[in-house]
Amino acid sequence: MNRPVTALTVAYDGAAFSGFARQVAVPTAQGVLEDALSTVLRRQVLTVGAGRTDAGVHARGQVVSFTSAETDPDARTILRAVGALAAPHVVVSDVRTARPGFSARFDALAREYRFLIVPGPVAPMALRHAAWWVKKDLDIDAMRAGAAFLVGSHDFRSFCVTGSAVDKPTVREVRAIEIEPAVELGESCIAVRILGRSFLHSMVRIIVGSLVDVGRGRRDPAWIAEVLAAGERATAGITAPAHGLTLWSVTYADDVWI
Amino acid sequence: MNRPVTALTVAYDGAAFSGFARQVAVPTAQGVLEDALSTVLRRQVLTVGAGRTDAGVHARGQVVSFTSAETDPDARTILRAVGALAAPHVVVSDVRTARPGFSARFDALAREYRFLIVPGPVAPMALRHAAWWVKKDLDIDAMRAGAAFLVGSHDFRSFCVTGSAVDKPTVREVRAIEIEPAVELGESCIAVRILGRSFLHSMVRIIVGSLVDVGRGRRDPAWIAEVLAAGERATAGITAPAHGLTLWSVTYADDVWI
Repeated sequence: MNRPVTALTVAYDGAAFSGFARQVAVPTAQGVLEDALSTVLRRQVLTVGAGRTDAGVHARGQVVSFTSAETDPDARTILRAVGALAAPHVVVSDVRTARPGFSARFDALAREYRFLIVPGPVAPMALRHAAWWVKKDLDIDAMRAGAAFLVGSHDFRSFCVTGSAVDKPTVREVRAIEIEPAVELGESCIAVRILGRSFLHSMVRIIVGSLVDVGRGRRDPAWIAEVLAAGERATAGITAPAHGLTLWSVTYADDVWI
Repeated sequence: MNRPVTALTVAYDGAAFSGFARQVAVPTAQGVLEDALSTVLRRQVLTVGAGRTDAGVHARGQVVSFTSAETDPDARTILRAVGALAAPHVVVSDVRTARPGFSARFDALAREYRFLIVPGPVAPMALRHAAWWVKKDLDIDAMRAGAAFLVGSHDFRSFCVTGSAVDKPTVREVRAIEIEPAVELGESCIAVRILGRSFLHSMVRIIVGSLVDVGRGRRDPAWIAEVLAAGERATAGITAPAHGLTLWSVTYADDVWI
């Protein structure tokens, strides 16, 4: 297979889908994209996504790749035509061409997720589909101190859906966790950005759920280190809700693009 | 009537309602609030809103007032109980007590509206319910030059729904129009903030629609002055879509609160 690969950058509304990955009989972002691509390219198109986001998780910069064919139209036409068919719940923001063999999943150098939390007694209105409303004020410094234990290469088995890690490697490298106050659409919130090459199933959401336990004072920051050492999902906090999470961006080496 | 007045600050999702003002048989923000208040206060409650937002227009800081009764519970209880009943499309963020005779509408010293525009070829995803997607790039400097003609006291008949201004005064004072690039939920947009004491029906949206004609180069900035002078709705631009507009905040004199 020495055909170049086409890579789409896509955004989608997690609320509209049962996750990214194509499934039979339920709406998924990959299903919408593959249906649109197959219509536009007049052939069956199978895609690879950089991240398998769960049901309810949003994407801003998901990357989806497929092997091109000689008969495919140019990038501009794909952008416009696939974008029109995938609307309104999927937006195609960019179409690029990568070297033969490129995979949006396996060639990803880094994935960045962003999780929004609205603390305090007043429910968010403009952010109610994009942020987790935690009804207490949160101690950001404590959350940062807890997060510091997670940065680096560790066995993240405790921060992974039970059963999903059986017989699979669970060591991952978290390169950075930034926790900052933010204002989005006029609402005060806390933005958690997590950067790494790859993540275990629900790992970002279990990290956020655990850091919120620290932020609300239920746990000390050092508890995060204990959870990490325990190697058991039951020791960590809850899985933060999907609607607060967005797959923000995926990074590749510059030389994959042709 | 020398009872104090209770004032709620509320946010709502314009998409859920046929506007603010109570109507028979259709959902409105005022209807939801009055029903919730009547249930919690165990009496019929009629309210006054600071701004009559149209169908689809959002509110972040709408103010709604009603005369209190001796039997009313305290502000904290009203906040919690009315908030619970008005959810999820209306959020009550604050409850204050004002002097007898206070009206959220007539005592307002200033109203601020914010309109979000997403320019360019890529549809917004995270902002698709909160911003107007204009498929062209916009010249912000030209929009600012056009807006400058509107600041001050003028007859805004040209920027008002046809028919709504018959036999009514149409002079209004626009105190400021600020047009700034912004990033909301990771999407690049243009925020238009308009400040004044009061506005004619659809005035903010017709101003934005006209400024976008300038921004996309269909009209010169000086055209805005011609529209203002013409005194005819037909000379102005389109009415920008409701879902881009938010009633941001309403200002009162400090001494109205007791």
